[in-house]
Amino acid sequence: MAVSSLRCIQSLGFSSRGRAFFPVGDCSRANARKSMNCRLVFASAKNSDRDLCVESKVETLLDSVKWDDKGLAVAIAQNIDTGAILMQGFVNRDALATTISSRKATFYSRSRSSLWTKGETSKNFINVHDIFLDCDRDSIIYLGKPDGPTCHTGSETCYYTSVNDFLEHKQIEGSRQALTTLYSLESTISQRKAELAVPQHVKPSWTKRLLLDSKFLCSKIREEADELCRTIEENEHGTRTASEMGDVLYHAMVLLALKDVKVEDVLDVLRHRFSQSGIEEKRSRGQQNEAMEEDGSWMWFQTLCPCT
Amino acid sequence: MAVSSLRCIQSLGFSSRGRAFFPVGDCSRANARKSMNCRLVFASAKNSDRDLCVESKVETLLDSVKWDDKGLAVAIAQNIDTGAILMQGFVNRDALATTISSRKATFYSRSRSSLWTKGETSKNFINVHDIFLDCDRDSIIYLGKPDGPTCHTGSETCYYTSVNDFLEHKQIEGSRQALTTLYSLESTISQRKAELAVPQHVKPSWTKRLLLDSKFLCSKIREEADELCRTIEENEHGTRTASEMGDVLYHAMVLLALKDVKVEDVLDVLRHRFSQSGIEEKRSRGQQNEAMEEDGSWMWFQTLCPCT
Repeated sequence: MAVSSLRCIQSLGFSSRGRAFFPVGDCSRANARKSMNCRLVFASAKNSDRDLCVESKVETLLDSVKWDDKGLAVAIAQNIDTGAILMQGFVNRDALATTISSRKATFYSRSRSSLWTKGETSKNFINVHDIFLDCDRDSIIYLGKPDGPTCHTGSETCYYTSVNDFLEHKQIEGSRQALTTLYSLESTISQRKAELAVPQHVKPSWTKRLLLDSKFLCSKIREEADELCRTIEENEHGTRTASEMGDVLYHAMVLLALKDVKVEDVLDVLRHRFSQSGIEEKRSRGQQNEAMEEDGSWMWFQTLCPCT
Repeated sequence: MAVSSLRCIQSLGFSSRGRAFFPVGDCSRANARKSMNCRLVFASAKNSDRDLCVESKVETLLDSVKWDDKGLAVAIAQNIDTGAILMQGFVNRDALATTISSRKATFYSRSRSSLWTKGETSKNFINVHDIFLDCDRDSIIYLGKPDGPTCHTGSETCYYTSVNDFLEHKQIEGSRQALTTLYSLESTISQRKAELAVPQHVKPSWTKRLLLDSKFLCSKIREEADELCRTIEENEHGTRTASEMGDVLYHAMVLLALKDVKVEDVLDVLRHRFSQSGIEEKRSRGQQNEAMEEDGSWMWFQTLCPCT
C-alpha cells in the first residue's frame, strides 16, 4: 500500500509541550507570498496556509531523519503508561509521515515491501501520542497506547523470551514478558492471588495474608502512609522516604490486585487528568463527585495541565 | 575489537524465573561422554562440565537469533526500573555473546565495524539484568540499570527530540525526554518545585500549595490513603479504586519531590527487596530498623523473592 508522505497531514492535532530541535524554515515552500515565519502564519493565515505550513514542517522533519542505505530507520513502539516495549519495526519516509498524520503506529514491511499499520487486521492499533527521535536521528520511538495485545501471538508485547530463563533451564507455564520493576511486582502479587484458589497446608506468605484479610491490608496501607509522612515530619533521610514509599506502593498494589485494578489503569487515569485542565476535569467528574470537588481534591489537576 | 563469542561465559550468573523457549539440546557438544541432560549435568558435574554446558546453550541461543543479511539484529537498552528506552544499537553474534557473559550492554558499531561496550569511555555502563528476544527473534531488549546518563550528550536517554514539539513550534529550555506517564508527572511536579524559587504574585497552584505546606501535604496523603482503603471497605467500583490510587500516587510523589527522592530510587529499593530473600533483607536492614522488623513489615519481601 503505497501512500503519499503527506496524506492527511491536515488532520494533525497533537498537543504537548517542548522545544524545537529542528532547523526552522520560513515556510517559503508552503507560503511563498509571505515573508513572515511559521509562527506568524499560524497566527494570522487561513487554514489552508496553516496546513501548507505544517506540511512543510513535516517535510523538514522527514528530511532530518538519517535514513539508512535502504531508506529505513528503526521504530520502537512503547506503551505510554507502562513503558513496556510493545514491538519494533522499521519505517521509511512514508511510514513515518503516515504515523504523524494518522496517529496509528505504521511501519514498512521489508518482506512485503509495503507499509502496514499495526492493527489493520487485528484492530489492535497503537494510538501514537508523541514520536521521539534519538540523538543520531536514525531511531524513533512511537510513544502510544495500544488498543489490545500487540503481538500476533496474543501476547501483550512481542518480547516474551528471556535469555536468563533459557540459560537457567527454567520452565514455567505461559510466557514471561520483559517486565520492569513495578510490573514484575504486580505480576508476582497477581500470581500469589491466583495461588489462593488452590488450598495449601503451609503458613501463608505475607502477600497472601494481606489478600486474605482486607481489614488487615487496609490497616497496613494507613500505617505505611503514616510512616511515609513521618519521614518528612521527623526530617528523616531520603533513603528512609524511598523505603517507606516502597512499602506504600507494595501494600496499595495488593489492594489493587484484590479489586482487579491494574497499575496501568491508574496511570491511564493520571494521564487523562494530566492532559486536561482542572475545569474540564471538574466537569467530567460530574454531579456524582460534588463532595470531592468541594474539598478541593480535584484542584491539583488544574496545576498539572500543560495549558494552565 | 574482535572477541570470541564465548569469552568469559564461565562468569555467567543471571538469576530469574521463567520458561525455556529455545530448543533444549542434551549438551552433547559440551559433554559428549554423558547422555544425561543439562539439568543433570548442572546438578552433578564438575564446574568445567557445567561451563561447557552453558557454553553449548549460549551457542544454541545465538543460533536461534534471526540475524539479517549483515549478521545483525536490533538491540534496545531499557532501564529496568523506569522503563525508559535508553538507546538503540545493533548487535552481531559476538556482541550478544559478550553482553551475556559480561552483563554490560555491548553493541556492534556499523561505522567502525567493531564491538563496543556502552560506557567503555564514559564509564556509564548499562548493567544488564536480563535479555529478551521478540517473537520474530530479530529484535532484542537489554533490560538493565545504567550507571549514569546513557547519551553522549549527557542526557539520560538518547530520545529527547519530540515530533510534537517541532510541529507545534514549541520552545522550552533544555530537552524533553520521551517520558511515560509516571515520569511526566514527576517532571511536572519537579518543575513546579523549581518555580517556587521565583517569587510570583498569583495564587499558587495546588501542587505549589502542597510543596509550600508539608503539614497540609501530609494531611492529604493520609486522607487519600484512607479514601483508597474505603473503596474496598465500602465495596466501591474498581474505577473509583483507580482514581483514588491516582490521588495517593500524586500526593506521595509531591512528598518525594520535597525530599529530593526520585521514583526511580523507590523502584530501585523495591527491586532489591524483590530479588533477595526476606532473611537477607532483614539482615541488610541491620540494627537500625529493629522496630520495623518486629512489626513484621519486612516480611512481605520474603513472599516476593523468586526463590521462596
